Amino acid sequence: MEFKNLDTLTSFSTLKKLPHLQVKDLLSKERISSANVHIGGGLTFNYSALPVHEEHIKALANLCEEQQLIEKYEALLRGEVINTGEKRLVLHHLTRGNALGSDNIILADSVNKEAFYKEQKNKIADFAIKIRNGEITGSTNKKFTQVVQIGIGGSDLGPRAMYLALHGWAKGEHKEVIEASFISNVDPDDASAILNEIDIETSLFILVSKSGTTQETLTNYEFVKQAITNTHIEGIDPSKHFVAVTSNTSPLATSKEVMDSFYIDDYIGGRYSSTSAVGTLILSIAFGKDVVDEFLLGAHQGDKAALEKDITKNGALLDAAIGVYLRNVLEYPNTAILPYSQALSRFPAHLQQLDMESNGKRVNRDGKELSYSTGPVLFGEPGTNGQHSFYQLLHQGTDITPLQFIGFKRNQRNQDILIENSTSQEKLLANLIAQIVAFAIGKDDSNNNKKFTGNRCSSLIFGNRLDPRALGALLAHYENKVMFQGFLWNINSFDQEGVQLGKVLAKKVLDGAEGDDILTSYIDLLK
Amino acid sequence: MEFKNLDTLTSFSTLKKLPHLQVKDLLSKERISSANVHIGGGLTFNYSALPVHEEHIKALANLCEEQQLIEKYEALLRGEVINTGEKRLVLHHLTRGNALGSDNIILADSVNKEAFYKEQKNKIADFAIKIRNGEITGSTNKKFTQVVQIGIGGSDLGPRAMYLALHGWAKGEHKEVIEASFISNVDPDDASAILNEIDIETSLFILVSKSGTTQETLTNYEFVKQAITNTHIEGIDPSKHFVAVTSNTSPLATSKEVMDSFYIDDYIGGRYSSTSAVGTLILSIAFGKDVVDEFLLGAHQGDKAALEKDITKNGALLDAAIGVYLRNVLEYPNTAILPYSQALSRFPAHLQQLDMESNGKRVNRDGKELSYSTGPVLFGEPGTNGQHSFYQLLHQGTDITPLQFIGFKRNQRNQDILIENSTSQEKLLANLIAQIVAFAIGKDDSNNNKKFTGNRCSSLIFGNRLDPRALGALLAHYENKVMFQGFLWNINSFDQEGVQLGKVLAKKVLDGAEGDDILTSYIDLLK
Repeated sequence: MEFKNLDTLTSFSTLKKLPHLQVKDLLSKERISSANVHIGGGLTFNYSALPVHEEHIKALANLCEEQQLIEKYEALLRGEVINTGEKRLVLHHLTRGNALGSDNIILADSVNKEAFYKEQKNKIADFAIKIRNGEITGSTNKKFTQVVQIGIGGSDLGPRAMYLALHGWAKGEHKEVIEASFISNVDPDDASAILNEIDIETSLFILVSKSGTTQETLTNYEFVKQAITNTHIEGIDPSKHFVAVTSNTSPLATSKEVMDSFYIDDYIGGRYSSTSAVGTLILSIAFGKDVVDEFLLGAHQGDKAALEKDITKNGALLDAAIGVYLRNVLEYPNTAILPYSQALSRFPAHLQQLDMESNGKRVNRDGKELSYSTGPVLFGEPGTNGQHSFYQLLHQGTDITPLQFIGFKRNQRNQDILIENSTSQEKLLANLIAQIVAFAIGKDDSNNNKKFTGNRCSSLIFGNRLDPRALGALLAHYENKVMFQGFLWNINSFDQEGVQLGKVLAKKVLDGAEGDDILTSYIDLLK
Repeated sequence: MEFKNLDTLTSFSTLKKLPHLQVKDLLSKERISSANVHIGGGLTFNYSALPVHEEHIKALANLCEEQQLIEKYEALLRGEVINTGEKRLVLHHLTRGNALGSDNIILADSVNKEAFYKEQKNKIADFAIKIRNGEITGSTNKKFTQVVQIGIGGSDLGPRAMYLALHGWAKGEHKEVIEASFISNVDPDDASAILNEIDIETSLFILVSKSGTTQETLTNYEFVKQAITNTHIEGIDPSKHFVAVTSNTSPLATSKEVMDSFYIDDYIGGRYSSTSAVGTLILSIAFGKDVVDEFLLGAHQGDKAALEKDITKNGALLDAAIGVYLRNVLEYPNTAILPYSQALSRFPAHLQQLDMESNGKRVNRDGKELSYSTGPVLFGEPGTNGQHSFYQLLHQGTDITPLQFIGFKRNQRNQDILIENSTSQEKLLANLIAQIVAFAIGKDDSNNNKKFTGNRCSSLIFGNRLDPRALGALLAHYENKVMFQGFLWNINSFDQEGVQLGKVLAKKVLDGAEGDDILTSYIDLLK
């Protein structure tokens, strides 16, 4: 297995020489019905409105083969040290099953990691059942009615996006839901706002920090602890309102100030941790163990689908490779994520971290500077809201932004209304279809200001309904897409050295920054 | 007054020839303490970490003069037809006062518009007092405890962002708050989720649609109306739970199915309507009239500050001109909005619409295609959250994204905690300062992967505390920045023809799209 820079690959030179296609010339009935790939969880990736034709896909297939993408993915699954910067295995896939089958045994630090993740999963399931049935209560013997996650970055964005994505489905299915909230920002107004909304006495707080040293999270932990004490409710004891999700070597792991601890390890990066204890504990408490099992199954299906060698049958691989074509050949700097599902309101924010933290790198795996672009800027909001906001620029701005639509045939909550012969759900889907076509085909007009040039490309992920299994597969699709793109660019998608300098300087500022003219000048400004 | 394309201006040619500066060479104690401009509402725009020096600022001053930016702004304020595409005046500034003084009388359709906006403002104030004191109740004679805005785009994003921005402040000041929610998406799960959270019997719904024909909003209106009826509470009458904000020519204006109507007009675009009835009605009900008066005063101060001819004393003008330098000379495609204030969690989403819908245009005011870039893509999340998410790419990605930081010395809710000698608020500000410097200066390292190239430029808007006046000024700063950039690019920032095609095609899809192979193929896919 070799790691090569993208611009040294023969197949990349070939790809660059291919004609640039216009989506409006490509779209056809046949293409729309055939450009579909199953990606697990009942979801399909449709690439009909992307500017690639047979010869491009062949070139992309060659690119993936020359860069040995499936081999690298398999190596990762077999437990090779793919995160070379930090000398670590990359094991988030294993939290949802063994994509290579039960013969694939991963040992690290003399521990069978599959067994380790399963053990945590079972412990979480037991714990969640006891919280949900009232067997475990708070310090005043009342049933927990609320769960609050304290964490930031990967300990916040993924779990929050997943919780919001499943909340409406659970309500639609009449599941018993324990409401969840999230405290992340070190801005004291964040914790304050949440604490003012909830009943502290019946709240369980999940403290999530792998290292057990994250400044924001520990600060908010103390903030919440003080708030619990300050309720002055007789017999209240903060330690009976906290559990931790942390690594078994962190100071939190053995703390007596928490009821229990659930373990993660260094082989799962924060942004990839939604299917580990970081995400599954809060989801199990909120929705129940069975929902989480379905969610993990969907992700596992996505992981297995991504092992397929034929690019035309592997949605994550295809999405990744076309994305690199859009970024490095057509030179589009951004990608927009446009879910036509209000439940996915924070999914783009999660993908921002997943993609931009993984692939926002300017050096390759060997620390050599790259002379080509890597990860794009991601942004997005749910449709139809975005249509009434930034779509103007997407349609008629001077730059082209590749679009990733997501949509579902049915809504989550089973409540709808028929007006002028269509339901709201039908209107939602009509808008989704209309936008794909409007972006691709455009419209001529004698008034330039009313003209749409078209040729604005998009992909579409669709399914029957956003249920736990579909959500798992959707998450895995993007995690695997990002991984494949990292392999294509020959970067390490699993470290994040770019967050370090800010931490060091923030500490310096808090210590007074004596002698540093620049820092002290800004300190004076904000004093 | 002449409207010229940016690339025909002599001063633009001069600007392009100036040396490209490195922020890390520029930053100094003197610069940080002197590169400050007051922008109203107690706020300051600091441009110390932007790659411009005296000669650049002089060139930008010449650019603004040659393009007659202040003259154009004054013409707009005097009521000239600046929105030429739709042949309309642009009057949002007038909703917060007359920036040119009381001699400036604006007549349109034989109506004195200042008097008209004042009349609506007074009517709103009266109505809000009566809702807040229980004089006006719902149909079952109970005091309203909740207000819900139904609107999309400009009728949603701005008011929602402003409500969230003031909520913590109002709580910190122990104001009586009537909680607000928002329904926007045509996805039925959006309305469903909100209706399941609130007490419908004591909820007042504000229906916001200028034309009275917005599909999403009318659909959600019917959805909510049905939900009210379906409560089957004795005597409940939907019409006593609705008010409308609409133009006085819309079907809603005289509807008997709403308690009352408050008027807006065609001279205020949706994305500029936060200070009109679209925003002030819900804010007055939620927080009281006095809070809204302060908010409007802050915006008015911002508008007056933007009239200053000297660019070094006009923050909105300077921000706009430097932004064009970053976009058209240094060719950066994006801008990130990074508020170090949890209260501004949805402010970036509002700015996305404000900026990208206003300036995402590829033709000039005369409908001629442009050969230069216009509005950038905007995105952002609150710090410190973003630090643990997409900042990796901002620090170490292959593209440079100009950054706009926002921060306040004090927090809103007056609750904080001292840990290891610093409060959470101090930690928040330490991170803000650290990031500005980390981005600008960077850090060398023998390991390329731990190296920060620096030279990633940023601006900072700061103030004492995010109160209503500061928020008003912050809003006006961005509205005026966007307006000035539109003038620089010679585009019409006040229409949005790019949203039309999608509407037409969505209707076609709902009507079956017979004979259209492309649309019907997508319909089949999602059936």
